[in-house]
Amino acid sequence: MTVHLITGGAGFIGVNLAERLRRRGEQVLLVDDLSRGRRANLGALERDPGVRLAVADCADRDALLLAVASAGLDGRIEEVWHLAANSDVAAGAQDLRVDVRDTLLTTTGVLEAMRALGLKTLNFASSSAVYGDLGERALTEDDGPLAPISNYGAMKLASEAQIRAACETFLDRASVFRFPNVVGAPATHGVILDFVRKLAADRRRLEVLGDGAQKKPYLHVQDLVEAMLALTDRLGAGRLEGGFNLVNIGPDDDGVTVREIAEMTAAAVSPGAEIEYGTTRAGWPGDVPRFRYAVDKARRLGWASGRSSQAAVRQAIAEIIEQEEAQLCRP
Amino acid sequence: MTVHLITGGAGFIGVNLAERLRRRGEQVLLVDDLSRGRRANLGALERDPGVRLAVADCADRDALLLAVASAGLDGRIEEVWHLAANSDVAAGAQDLRVDVRDTLLTTTGVLEAMRALGLKTLNFASSSAVYGDLGERALTEDDGPLAPISNYGAMKLASEAQIRAACETFLDRASVFRFPNVVGAPATHGVILDFVRKLAADRRRLEVLGDGAQKKPYLHVQDLVEAMLALTDRLGAGRLEGGFNLVNIGPDDDGVTVREIAEMTAAAVSPGAEIEYGTTRAGWPGDVPRFRYAVDKARRLGWASGRSSQAAVRQAIAEIIEQEEAQLCRP
Repeated sequence: MTVHLITGGAGFIGVNLAERLRRRGEQVLLVDDLSRGRRANLGALERDPGVRLAVADCADRDALLLAVASAGLDGRIEEVWHLAANSDVAAGAQDLRVDVRDTLLTTTGVLEAMRALGLKTLNFASSSAVYGDLGERALTEDDGPLAPISNYGAMKLASEAQIRAACETFLDRASVFRFPNVVGAPATHGVILDFVRKLAADRRRLEVLGDGAQKKPYLHVQDLVEAMLALTDRLGAGRLEGGFNLVNIGPDDDGVTVREIAEMTAAAVSPGAEIEYGTTRAGWPGDVPRFRYAVDKARRLGWASGRSSQAAVRQAIAEIIEQEEAQLCRP
Repeated sequence: MTVHLITGGAGFIGVNLAERLRRRGEQVLLVDDLSRGRRANLGALERDPGVRLAVADCADRDALLLAVASAGLDGRIEEVWHLAANSDVAAGAQDLRVDVRDTLLTTTGVLEAMRALGLKTLNFASSSAVYGDLGERALTEDDGPLAPISNYGAMKLASEAQIRAACETFLDRASVFRFPNVVGAPATHGVILDFVRKLAADRRRLEVLGDGAQKKPYLHVQDLVEAMLALTDRLGAGRLEGGFNLVNIGPDDDGVTVREIAEMTAAAVSPGAEIEYGTTRAGWPGDVPRFRYAVDKARRLGWASGRSSQAAVRQAIAEIIEQEEAQLCRP
């Protein structure tokens, strides 16, 4: 039976991937330093005998090797999913070391551990942030320049590059998935959680960062997980494009605006709330206000999202309200 | 008077840039940890009162700040030239940490120090290695994918990305120059020095890494320095393309082959030597066997090389033979 190692395994996407793999009957080793991921995110996974959680910092090769050895899984791991990273883009703008350490050096540590263990297949969570602010054109995987405007995007690009180089030496196959905005539960950060929490604190008004015209594609985390599994199966079977594969994952639409998300969230949480917009095009330094993906490559590989950005956001709002219900103080 | 800070200032390109700036009458602060750069490279610069050398590791922000303060140059530095990096591509293939530390984290340290000092203009030595092995097409600055096949190239790309992101927060202008192969003296590494040293050790044979068909553009270091100064003046005057500028620097030709370089070097050092080629397309893991630059952008900005790849190599062979003469044991 295949054992999957998931770094950042106690985070938002990690637990969703683990749940899906368990439904396929696969075993899972979650590695997380619990700096951003939380044990509480695991839910029923924590009592599942097919799941182990090792608390370790992925930037530390030896800690990672010890985690694998302690779980008794030496020689049984086949797939590695590297999801560990900083998730606070704004914090990375203040301090260059945040994304160096948490977004790049986790990749370095994972690659070093894989080399030591003789593991040759890596799946990596990259980001639209590697492109930077290229405006309205539909971005393909081969587009340049790659001009990230955040340290988060810069260190995701650095990770991609380090993985690409590793394909020249010890990796057989790497699949790099460039995520759009991903929404759903358990939400740990992001615009919807931010809005729900603001409205819980003050039901009369909702302050929005930026002018609300930011427009991006959103994918529900369940669709993201399906996409990664479908694409990985396909890329693994076909050994397409040599060992290194880059795929944009996203819905096939132009996205939804922050204004629409604010209105949908307010309507669900506190219909009378007044929404107050800022004046800047971006929400914070490093925020890419608009982007659009070309998803032809994913479609050629057999995957397309069944859900629009708007539908993904709508479902996520409902899930995040449920998640935060205890704090919402409904009458 | 402008003071220029040059990181990697005791290295091959650093001392050539410093000499040229001194001829323009500018003052120079060289920072180097002397791990690859050597004090001996400075030559006459060491006794020049307009030049100071501070021994410091650029990855360490505080060491860099102390170097600037100790030189009494607080508030007087205007231009920063960040050249410090690993220069041994093959060593980086063995150990991921080499280029993380010496190629990326030096950039991080320089950016952190610039932020602390309120310095806003950075010139950076990047590399053709960021493109990877894209074959025969002429590479433009906006081309993708960026798929480096060495950790050196990966961490140069990471540095570019980190600088790009810094333009969103505290940098006013960054000029990123993507170098081709650069040749000349004082040579510290590279194919010509390698051949000259091999022939000095054994005048009868010359072993070549790879099949000799590798073909790349070569630029003489004097032309490189002229290019950087011309382009920086132009970019600084015009504030072109917002704050972040990427420019390929190279000769306007298809390059020369390693076979030609081997033959030219053997003819100059030991005409009767037998040249023995390997069988691989690349010389070592991470070596890009062929690439070609589009240099239209540099030309639009007013610079073009007056020398071909072949002429640059020929001059460099003569200079490196002179440099190595003591070891050559000529009859």
